[in-house]
Amino acid sequence: MRTNHFGMADSGWPGCAKSLKGVILDLCGVLYDSGEGDGVAIPGSIEAVKKLKESDLQLRFCTNETQATREKFVAKLRRLGFDISVSEVFPPAPAAIAVLKERGLRPHLLVHDGLLPEFDGVDKTNPNCVIVGDAAENFSYQNLNEAFRVLIGLEKPVLFSLGQGRYYKETDGLKLDVGVYMKALEYACDLKAEVIGKPSPTFFRSVLNDMGLKPHERAHHGLLLCFCPHPPLWLLYWAVVQKVLMIGDDLLNDVGGAQHCGMKGVQVRTGKYRPIDERHPAVTADGTVDNLAQAVDMILSQRGH
Amino acid sequence: MRTNHFGMADSGWPGCAKSLKGVILDLCGVLYDSGEGDGVAIPGSIEAVKKLKESDLQLRFCTNETQATREKFVAKLRRLGFDISVSEVFPPAPAAIAVLKERGLRPHLLVHDGLLPEFDGVDKTNPNCVIVGDAAENFSYQNLNEAFRVLIGLEKPVLFSLGQGRYYKETDGLKLDVGVYMKALEYACDLKAEVIGKPSPTFFRSVLNDMGLKPHERAHHGLLLCFCPHPPLWLLYWAVVQKVLMIGDDLLNDVGGAQHCGMKGVQVRTGKYRPIDERHPAVTADGTVDNLAQAVDMILSQRGH
Repeated sequence: MRTNHFGMADSGWPGCAKSLKGVILDLCGVLYDSGEGDGVAIPGSIEAVKKLKESDLQLRFCTNETQATREKFVAKLRRLGFDISVSEVFPPAPAAIAVLKERGLRPHLLVHDGLLPEFDGVDKTNPNCVIVGDAAENFSYQNLNEAFRVLIGLEKPVLFSLGQGRYYKETDGLKLDVGVYMKALEYACDLKAEVIGKPSPTFFRSVLNDMGLKPHERAHHGLLLCFCPHPPLWLLYWAVVQKVLMIGDDLLNDVGGAQHCGMKGVQVRTGKYRPIDERHPAVTADGTVDNLAQAVDMILSQRGH
Repeated sequence: MRTNHFGMADSGWPGCAKSLKGVILDLCGVLYDSGEGDGVAIPGSIEAVKKLKESDLQLRFCTNETQATREKFVAKLRRLGFDISVSEVFPPAPAAIAVLKERGLRPHLLVHDGLLPEFDGVDKTNPNCVIVGDAAENFSYQNLNEAFRVLIGLEKPVLFSLGQGRYYKETDGLKLDVGVYMKALEYACDLKAEVIGKPSPTFFRSVLNDMGLKPHERAHHGLLLCFCPHPPLWLLYWAVVQKVLMIGDDLLNDVGGAQHCGMKGVQVRTGKYRPIDERHPAVTADGTVDNLAQAVDMILSQRGH
């Protein structure tokens, strides 16, 4: 058995499956491919989700999806055949609304029409920040220019980006994602956006918290680490978080993001996966599998199911 | 009299005007403000250009304008009242066409409809590079996505950007410029664009060459510098190029770009100028003037006109 740099037991993939407590799944490109209408379920993924739900593992869904409200998005997944409920799904928009409330900010929205109802109760008068989501066809020159003018007119411009993906795959090909427009506005206004969504550690921690880990306490322990030469609480956190596995098709945002938080990260060869991902200079997945069905079979077989 | 780091006489602005051989003017924001129809001439600029033409100074116009062919663009300037001919104006598109020919490349174009005729004679079948210009309303999600798909499908993706400006000012407000979309595609495809236009030194040198300096010889001298401990030819180049002044409204692309090539750079307080430019951490203009008319009066009065 290998040991990690904390000197702790570190069985690699799929050996780590034995000690897993929970699994976090990305949605688009793992469960289904988006496209015309509801898109299409990836073969074997409906059954794979069912098997995970029937196991003793905790299961959450963590997505950078921002083209629809959480309710409408989950309804689509259910129409595709997935047994998923709203409370299990974590998209960036509700997290962004919490940040706005906390900091007293009023957003100008550059998002998909389908996401607008999520912000119905949010004060958007006289905006003092901009939120950019995966607006797709709404990324017109006019709309990007409008967001730019709001930012450049602010004394302290604040830009939130709901994810930072480069592109995603729909049934008719690759499509530019929100990160591309985040970079465009960053350059136009000479600023750095705050990312809400994967791979932000804050975002992953909100999911871990919901799984029974306590992120606020952990953040406190993180601070303790700065002053304490013997950080037993940090090790405790590390030991727990290592028992969570993220499965996604995005090497940087899913796999890299999860690993950065101490989780394991496995990449599927569906969705936006490209063979070049397996030779990436900075991020190496703990495992690479053909699809979700294969990952789930490997996990459950390691656990003796 | 100050001396520069080559130990040569370096009279600052406006003292340097005495020894000037030539002046390069930016167009948009210096001669006129673009907008509805032809835009509007900036007060005093028509007369200022006339005075420069009547002086003993060489005069060229160097622009990152890519919304029209050179012929149509110059016709617009003439309608506004400027006495300017096509051979005096240097925009990026003709320089890009020369690069395509030299390297045997076939472009996919993401440019303004008005620029398309400039590329009429260029082979665009089965493209192996992308050229992005100031496409304005053509920067739709669909068009940016199409350019992205061409690039991501190439084994060795090559992206040319006709300038790298962040934004420019039209009569109805600030507008996003090509650099913003260059950054977007750079991020989407994880590559670095080649800039054709200001502030590229190659681009500035093509203008200097037309003024009677010989850039090909100079490039050769530049190489000599690497091997020769006594670079008299380099000093000769430096002495000549210091006698050319660039006047523009863009601190980074006009002033900084010119200074990087050894020229003097003066910024006008018209066009996209913002007061914050005068406190920029990296680029300090040799002089800042209210407008072109003031700059020309200062130059000519130093020269005893």
